[in-house]
Amino acid sequence: MNTEMSQSEDGEINMAAWILGVKNLSIQPYPLPSLGPHDVKIKIKAVGICGSDVHYYKTMRCANFIANKPMVLGHECAGIIQELGTQVQSLSVGDRVALEPGISCQTCNFCKGGRYNLCRGMKFFGSASTHGSLANMVVHPANLCFKLPDNVSLEEGAMIEPLSVGVHACRRANIGPDTNVLIIGAGPIGLIVSLAARAFGSPRIVMVDVDNTRLSIAKDLGADETILVSTSIQVFTLYSTNFTLLGV
Amino acid sequence: MNTEMSQSEDGEINMAAWILGVKNLSIQPYPLPSLGPHDVKIKIKAVGICGSDVHYYKTMRCANFIANKPMVLGHECAGIIQELGTQVQSLSVGDRVALEPGISCQTCNFCKGGRYNLCRGMKFFGSASTHGSLANMVVHPANLCFKLPDNVSLEEGAMIEPLSVGVHACRRANIGPDTNVLIIGAGPIGLIVSLAARAFGSPRIVMVDVDNTRLSIAKDLGADETILVSTSIQVFTLYSTNFTLLGV
Amino acid sequence: MNTEMSQSEDGEINMAAWILGVKNLSIQPYPLPSLGPHDVKIKIKAVGICGSDVHYYKTMRCANFIANKPMVLGHECAGIIQELGTQVQSLSVGDRVALEPGISCQTCNFCKGGRYNLCRGMKFFGSASTHGSLANMVVHPANLCFKLPDNVSLEEGAMIEPLSVGVHACRRANIGPDTNVLIIGAGPIGLIVSLAARAFGSPRIVMVDVDNTRLSIAKDLGADETILVSTSIQVFTLYSTNFTLLGV
Amino acid sequence: MNTEMSQSEDGEINMAAWILGVKNLSIQPYPLPSLGPHDVKIKIKAVGICGSDVHYYKTMRCANFIANKPMVLGHECAGIIQELGTQVQSLSVGDRVALEPGISCQTCNFCKGGRYNLCRGMKFFGSASTHGSLANMVVHPANLCFKLPDNVSLEEGAMIEPLSVGVHACRRANIGPDTNVLIIGAGPIGLIVSLAARAFGSPRIVMVDVDNTRLSIAKDLGADETILVSTSIQVFTLYSTNFTLLGV
Repeated sequence: MNTEMSQSEDGEINMAAWILGVKNLSIQPYPLPSLGPHDVKIKIKAVGICGSDVHYYKTMRCANFIANKPMVLGHECAGIIQELGTQVQSLSVGDRVALEPGISCQTCNFCKGGRYNLCRGMKFFGSASTHGSLANMVVHPANLCFKLPDNVSLEEGAMIEPLSVGVHACRRANIGPDTNVLIIGAGPIGLIVSLAARAFGSPRIVMVDVDNTRLSIAKDLGADETILVSTSIQVFTLYSTNFTLLGV
Repeated sequence: MNTEMSQSEDGEINMAAWILGVKNLSIQPYPLPSLGPHDVKIKIKAVGICGSDVHYYKTMRCANFIANKPMVLGHECAGIIQELGTQVQSLSVGDRVALEPGISCQTCNFCKGGRYNLCRGMKFFGSASTHGSLANMVVHPANLCFKLPDNVSLEEGAMIEPLSVGVHACRRANIGPDTNVLIIGAGPIGLIVSLAARAFGSPRIVMVDVDNTRLSIAKDLGADETILVSTSIQVFTLYSTNFTLLGV
Repeated sequence: MNTEMSQSEDGEINMAAWILGVKNLSIQPYPLPSLGPHDVKIKIKAVGICGSDVHYYKTMRCANFIANKPMVLGHECAGIIQELGTQVQSLSVGDRVALEPGISCQTCNFCKGGRYNLCRGMKFFGSASTHGSLANMVVHPANLCFKLPDNVSLEEGAMIEPLSVGVHACRRANIGPDTNVLIIGAGPIGLIVSLAARAFGSPRIVMVDVDNTRLSIAKDLGADETILVSTSIQVFTLYSTNFTLLGV
Repeated sequence: MNTEMSQSEDGEINMAAWILGVKNLSIQPYPLPSLGPHDVKIKIKAVGICGSDVHYYKTMRCANFIANKPMVLGHECAGIIQELGTQVQSLSVGDRVALEPGISCQTCNFCKGGRYNLCRGMKFFGSASTHGSLANMVVHPANLCFKLPDNVSLEEGAMIEPLSVGVHACRRANIGPDTNVLIIGAGPIGLIVSLAARAFGSPRIVMVDVDNTRLSIAKDLGADETILVSTSIQVFTLYSTNFTLLGV
């Protein structure tokens, strides 16, 4: 898509959630880029709020990624296809889709080699000044939109992005019926990893956190054991050869 | 171990189940080979009867493997360590162990490369004139004896050999939470593969057989669907892109 | 790129080599598709003639690929960048480039997994009714154009496509200093495979053909041994365990 | 083999080079262990002197491996088979062989998985109190003796052990015609790695050392470039993305 701005063709103004500065969030018009031949326009129906969104809201940055100008937030999302680029054949108007939020360069060795998640030229929704998806509508490459089966809701579709983190972690760690798993941190990603590890057949999942409320959710979601640690404890001494270290 | 025969040191005569010819099974003395420095002597406590044992009993052969002289049958087994070779350090007298039944050559590329199950010089218990383990005692390399945890019985230990077939099949087929599985044949190995596939996270397991009794056991053991076919049907037309073909 | 045709902006008519039917080749105008945001326009300077081009010329087909209407031929090519799409950042006007001739769908599992050469939706220059590169100018995705180093000529650049067949064959066959290689067929691809195998360290390369002239070129290019066979001989009986079978 | 000592059967006393303490080397009798069923007795004809041998001579240790009692030195060796254990079928008396110097446990996951070079229970010739091969005769497992082709001398056979270090390094680093190589250190192993890298097809090999004599040998053996550094320079700043780091 190019950077030329244009109003939606039905005259409706596309609105989005912008961070304008530290703790300064505002719903403002978001003129969409024009639709390239391989792009689709999607009416967004559900967006998750990630920890990174909160970081950007509080500090205009997340780790080493910096928003140095106003930016539309959000990246965990699903919606309904509104319009197709001229070359798009894999989707139809009306399709319910989950969006993969990162547009990679398609040119580097990582992209060509099938590990495009590692592309250094990645333009990721709502990160490092790339506009996100907390908007009425977005334009996105068709090949990053995945059609949802009928039994998956749009809200569930928006959760596919964080779920894929858990699945990727379990694949990288080669989780299976012979793998006990220790998860450090029972936040949303830790919980998703525990659900994925169970689905991969892990017979024993232990979760560690400093917050008992989170551990209680972990227990409800099926963790075999939870360990409350104080913030002053060196957690990593808990690692032992009985556990597989999950690294994404 | 060498081929020199010797009586058990406590004077007891070691007895075993020999096939002497087609449908001619006899319990007869089985003089044990001498104990090499890396071998152990095991008192056998449980032995499974495999389909291959039945083939040898009925025809003195199994596929291309031929018993051209009397042979002790049996290979799915567990027992208790009675005596250690001079160099054995990994086991102790009294240990309860499951036995891996094939002694590979340790010399070929398969053996050195960690795929010793494919060794062409394999000497396998109760196959191709190599004596088996349906005996009071056997001598076997220590590194093919695996100590059982306390919560695994000797009968269960004897089933580890066929179970390992199911685990290997699932690893080869890369079974996981994204893999539907179709199993052709609901005999003991088919059933074991279904249990292993479930443990690996397969969400949907379908089993096919010509025998309703077997399919009913498959259902009891957790198959999601069973399909009865007549012996005259070309079963393989059932394969579809929705299923992963399990090959061991 | 879309299918809308347009004249070159400098008014020059773009000409190309069309096959209009069996053995009917004609230089005719080839209106270029419009330039998409990720495309570049290239002035073609060198094009190789592949065996598949000859097949199309003689029969309007190559193996199972059929040209069911007039088509521009050619796919082994190099040229100079004339114009950039709005989103192209990896190339500059004036860059000398080799073109990867197949445009894959970017959507299927093969494309996303880094094996886009296997994409079933591939649109390949001069094949199956997709127009080729035996033309003054073509429009092509920027990420399929590879900048040539100064010491590589445009003619050499056009040979990178067939060379990559040889390199891929040697990688697939894991050729190295411990691999003797037998190559059946000493045509251009066989010769290129032999050069690649030598570069990968193969200590012994044997080539087989029915044509002594080709074998003499093979010898000149460094084959260690050549074997002339009659067309009536069953060549494949020559395969032995001493040789690695090269399959692309 | 067990620890019971026995004289050679022809009455000849087996002599070996012992380190008795720091810088205290002595040729003394080395009673051989008895021949196990899978062992062979080898008349040693050639032994290389490794840097580790020199370390043991000077300090009775090498890195973390300590000789805490008198030990026969040496591990790079070749010889002639004198006698076969009762179960040995892969070799014959009179065979010229190179010896792989480490006896692994055959029991751990590394051994069973084909990476026995990483076995933590390794007993390695002339290291950590395991007697070596700088002796008239040694007893060794048959599957660690590799028959030499007629065109490989016994002296060359003794060099197969260090050569295998170079080959392994190049395999680990995936060296090929697309890999430039930088080698830090032009000692015997560095030189061997350079020869192996050339055989694997590396187009450009650069070697670094603090000793010009070594670099001159490197040049003679085919290094494309050599770089003399002073011992005070931080060599590692030379690493760049143009080079592949060879790690064994």
